[in-house]
Amino acid sequence: GVAPAVQAQTVLRWRLASSFPKALDTIYGAAEVFAKKVGEMSGGKFQISVHAGGELMPAFGVVDGVQNATVEMAHTAPYYFFGKDETFAIGCAIPFGLNSRQMTAWQYEGNGLKLMREFYANYNIVHFPMGNTGAQMGGWYRKEIKTVADVKGLKMRIGGFAGRVLERMGGVPQNIPGGEIYQALEKGTIDAAEWVGPYDDLKLGFFKVAPFYHYPGWWEGGPQLDLYINTKAFNGLSAEYKAIVEAAAAYAHTEMQAKYDARNPAALTQLLANKTKLVQMPVPVMDLAFQESMGLYSELMAKNPNWKKVYSDYAAFRKESNRWFRYTEAFFDNYMQSKVNKL
Amino acid sequence: GVAPAVQAQTVLRWRLASSFPKALDTIYGAAEVFAKKVGEMSGGKFQISVHAGGELMPAFGVVDGVQNATVEMAHTAPYYFFGKDETFAIGCAIPFGLNSRQMTAWQYEGNGLKLMREFYANYNIVHFPMGNTGAQMGGWYRKEIKTVADVKGLKMRIGGFAGRVLERMGGVPQNIPGGEIYQALEKGTIDAAEWVGPYDDLKLGFFKVAPFYHYPGWWEGGPQLDLYINTKAFNGLSAEYKAIVEAAAAYAHTEMQAKYDARNPAALTQLLANKTKLVQMPVPVMDLAFQESMGLYSELMAKNPNWKKVYSDYAAFRKESNRWFRYTEAFFDNYMQSKVNKL
Repeated sequence: GVAPAVQAQTVLRWRLASSFPKALDTIYGAAEVFAKKVGEMSGGKFQISVHAGGELMPAFGVVDGVQNATVEMAHTAPYYFFGKDETFAIGCAIPFGLNSRQMTAWQYEGNGLKLMREFYANYNIVHFPMGNTGAQMGGWYRKEIKTVADVKGLKMRIGGFAGRVLERMGGVPQNIPGGEIYQALEKGTIDAAEWVGPYDDLKLGFFKVAPFYHYPGWWEGGPQLDLYINTKAFNGLSAEYKAIVEAAAAYAHTEMQAKYDARNPAALTQLLANKTKLVQMPVPVMDLAFQESMGLYSELMAKNPNWKKVYSDYAAFRKESNRWFRYTEAFFDNYMQSKVNKL
Repeated sequence: GVAPAVQAQTVLRWRLASSFPKALDTIYGAAEVFAKKVGEMSGGKFQISVHAGGELMPAFGVVDGVQNATVEMAHTAPYYFFGKDETFAIGCAIPFGLNSRQMTAWQYEGNGLKLMREFYANYNIVHFPMGNTGAQMGGWYRKEIKTVADVKGLKMRIGGFAGRVLERMGGVPQNIPGGEIYQALEKGTIDAAEWVGPYDDLKLGFFKVAPFYHYPGWWEGGPQLDLYINTKAFNGLSAEYKAIVEAAAAYAHTEMQAKYDARNPAALTQLLANKTKLVQMPVPVMDLAFQESMGLYSELMAKNPNWKKVYSDYAAFRKESNRWFRYTEAFFDNYMQSKVNKL
């Protein structure tokens, strides 16, 4: 009939606001990979233009942008929005949370997708998991962290929600845009800064001014990026386009983790060749951070009903998951790592 | 115009031959998830029927089936076909190989997809990664393995390529179909058998007749399943359908790992409640297996040019990858696992 032929000619044009600068090519790039796949699968009839943070709206304005339908879509790290509600952080990363595979499992096969969508409905948002960086590093330090005393008064550039735990540990979290970290570290305005991991950190050159590179980033064991879509806009899509969006997001989700896993090793080698001192975070510091994180979560259970609903499920999944992962997965990996010089 | 409208009505019908029985719902299910997504994304105009192992052709006849275009597609574990060429095994799992995330990274962002496609071209196959089980368990044993001496003469049901290493260790690999393992273990015709992991193993009830459940499955740190497509059939698809196939495979790839990660924990708990004795494989046994695996690979480097080309790249990726994974990823995971009773 005529109708399908006419419909076939219509081009649907949407805009996606990213929270990230183009320079973060792996993270920003996931939105481009997604948009490209949607274009290909729809034969060019569903076009999504991707806009870097600040281009259409401030980087941290994208939840409002999607909620108010200023744009149809955003790509962001949900924990940026913990000031609106701490529950956002669970959809991304919380200290001592799930690792990358566990997070994907919770979202895809546990109750994660369902529970987070119920929560995001308050913001007119439907979300899809779209990227994970894997476990991040614990950041760059001008002086090595040797004891819990070294954390007292430590002025550290650290992502929002984790800052609450650092504060409880006696540290002083600082909120500094990516582009200004290097100078602040160089001048000693701050003592430490965390960014992502070797691939992204190398580009910003922190190793030149803060040689101690601690691991792990206990606050980001597997941070997930999300595709946010305005609910009304999503519901207005055809069944085909809904499925295309879901699969394109899954493709970009998997590809982003693969990019980090493929690129971090070479970047680490380069950092080590440039006198980076790779140091494990002392266990007593980890233990203090763990204790303060669990303390914070207990308080939130009492204060925030959204947190209570989502975190209860997340925490049960985390416990069960680690009970399994500690055997065959962990032992296989640890054994392979112990043999690295014989591979 | 008329042409697009007519084309829009045409339904493309393809057949996919799986190597798996429907009872392996996570693995077999990945092909169903894939087919469903392709159907949804194409508005029902690209229909793929999924057939269990043995339905259209023998479970291990699917490479021939795709090569000869008896079917357009297959879903299988490439290592089944190491008898044709050992290089097939690298596309799935080899002893002391890549883990699940590393394998996806090698395929998506390393040279894995490119190199395996060059190899598969000899069989008229284009492949897409479509599923991973994660690190498998080391199998069920009637008697605990305590020393390397316990492996001598051990009659074990074990997947093909790994059997070559077991043989070098003094064991006696047995080839027994899934449905007959239980009885063979019960009667003592075999001493041990490996299958997959808790979720699949629980269903077959091995814990009743062989209580020692060793980990890890050093021969399967992250076995990848593949979607095989006849090259000519794939090349005949429109650009839209090619992109849809790729994204649907990526969706199924990620979802299958998520299913295992979400379902293995509860199955393990159930097995432990049923007197399963979970035991680490002794390090000297691991070391012997490692040494014999590397010995086998050296021999294949000299004998098989396809192996040499692909394995050289794979091995370099594995080394670099483990050099990175042993720091922040491993320490984060190990720490979380150590705190499992406080989560």
